[in-house]
Amino acid sequence: MAGIFIGVDLGGTNVKIGCFDHELKLIAKTSVATQADMGPEAVVNRICETSEKLLAKNGLSADVIEAVGIGAPGPLNPSEGIVIACPNLPLFKDVPLRKMLSDRWGKNVVLENDANAACWGEYVLGVGKDIEDMVFFTLGTGIGGGVVVGGELVKGCCGNAAELGHIIIFPNGRQCNCGQRGCVEAYASASSTAARAAEAVRAGEQSSLKKVLEEKGQITCKDVYEHLAAGDKLAKKITDETAEALAIVCVNMLHTTEPERIVFSGGMIAAGDVLLEGIRHFFKKHVWTLKAESPQICFATLGEDAGIIGAAALARQAQKAGK
Amino acid sequence: MAGIFIGVDLGGTNVKIGCFDHELKLIAKTSVATQADMGPEAVVNRICETSEKLLAKNGLSADVIEAVGIGAPGPLNPSEGIVIACPNLPLFKDVPLRKMLSDRWGKNVVLENDANAACWGEYVLGVGKDIEDMVFFTLGTGIGGGVVVGGELVKGCCGNAAELGHIIIFPNGRQCNCGQRGCVEAYASASSTAARAAEAVRAGEQSSLKKVLEEKGQITCKDVYEHLAAGDKLAKKITDETAEALAIVCVNMLHTTEPERIVFSGGMIAAGDVLLEGIRHFFKKHVWTLKAESPQICFATLGEDAGIIGAAALARQAQKAGK
Repeated sequence: MAGIFIGVDLGGTNVKIGCFDHELKLIAKTSVATQADMGPEAVVNRICETSEKLLAKNGLSADVIEAVGIGAPGPLNPSEGIVIACPNLPLFKDVPLRKMLSDRWGKNVVLENDANAACWGEYVLGVGKDIEDMVFFTLGTGIGGGVVVGGELVKGCCGNAAELGHIIIFPNGRQCNCGQRGCVEAYASASSTAARAAEAVRAGEQSSLKKVLEEKGQITCKDVYEHLAAGDKLAKKITDETAEALAIVCVNMLHTTEPERIVFSGGMIAAGDVLLEGIRHFFKKHVWTLKAESPQICFATLGEDAGIIGAAALARQAQKAGK
Repeated sequence: MAGIFIGVDLGGTNVKIGCFDHELKLIAKTSVATQADMGPEAVVNRICETSEKLLAKNGLSADVIEAVGIGAPGPLNPSEGIVIACPNLPLFKDVPLRKMLSDRWGKNVVLENDANAACWGEYVLGVGKDIEDMVFFTLGTGIGGGVVVGGELVKGCCGNAAELGHIIIFPNGRQCNCGQRGCVEAYASASSTAARAAEAVRAGEQSSLKKVLEEKGQITCKDVYEHLAAGDKLAKKITDETAEALAIVCVNMLHTTEPERIVFSGGMIAAGDVLLEGIRHFFKKHVWTLKAESPQICFATLGEDAGIIGAAALARQAQKAGK
């Protein structure tokens, strides 16, 4: 049979692994705890052993692997295959992840930023498969991004393009984990949305979220959207600010790569239509009047599989290109 | 002999025309008043007659033209070859510029946004010729932009990508001519820099520019940079704000397409090193600390010829691709 492509999505908590055929049809997938505190070598061992078990369950050996794609949090040096640093994987500093994986199996390995990999997955098999120009955001603890221009993933001169969460929209504004101020991530990620709500409650604003904070000691983004649905005014203000921040970045991306579709993914899209309608509302408020603009603003469709699909698709693409 | 490529740079005041050989070597060039108030047909006639005279002076006829590239202010519909609207060419509304030019000579014509054409000129023959990823700004009455990703000009889904002057950096900030608020163009173009200085003087701020405003009835961007050189404090504040606005957009473009080089061009770069050093200073202030970043921030090298070179280069590229 033709070879298998392995797609790996390395996260701080879990690592997802999928086996795909040449048409990127999923043969099998699994998810295991990353156990990042064991260090890079242990994590790589775990990825390899889990992949081999997954293949074995399907009557296959590692020999059938044609190439491997792995999406990892950045910043990375993809051309050298190195994870430079990663807040969610604190022991990963200048780790030659690609070499470690390729040494194990003797196969080609492609390393890509995890959000870029998920973007590519959605572009190849999901919400972007019928277009050429797409912008992609993942809304979670942080905000990741991916950009497709003319059917190609934008990689940048050093492999760290599309860090869209770190576009500055309020100069000298809220402190971001990256060291900058005023990044969209500092306002509109799930964590920042929750943090802004907690700050407002602590500052004395009236809200049904006050009870949540008192009882649980924290407020989650899910809480905020639930209290919005129940009519809480502070939740309305906080989620409007989230939608407006995302809309401003949509306007900025329209004027940068002019995508046909702007796609949101990640845990926070569980908020549903109210999030999408908010972004569209504020997009109309902020966008120019020089000519009519109507990029589609929508949700991703592949869910959590986007990362492993995209990683496998990048492995297949690199293999075809003979890299 | 091999054919000639014509490059046209259509501006509100002047139209520049150049004839190029297959290696994009300039054979001859000229510049004439656009006379935009005569309307699109008269302007097209003028472009054609001027081009034919230029060829004739060099012993050539219009038969040798292989293809024509024209850069025009946007927004455009490049795939249909139409100028949708243009503040500096008020009679140009839904003008089928490509068809009008191709009907005249029976040759292929490529229409592109003027800043994109200039960007492509700098990329092919100027400051960008040794790299793959570049971001380009023109600083003049407005701010135009161009983006090269992986050696290709970013065009966008509808041919209006890289309107970088309309990236919003201060939401709900200064009104921009485009209908948005807080665009970088509303702060850091030559006109906006001059306008902010005049507003500050009128508001009573102490400055040696006050005399300029009283005597000439206006302040130009050139005045502001001259008074900066002479030690005026208001000029320092205004030009710092200009540099900071441009630096924030540089950070945002770093996180979007990750260029190796960010290039500034246009009349305003006559301000010289003080402008470039200011942008670099504020870039360092605003950029993340997650990893070291050092895109080259520099000036364009082709001067006013970038537009005609880029237009001719796009014509040559389209001809090669058999479009």
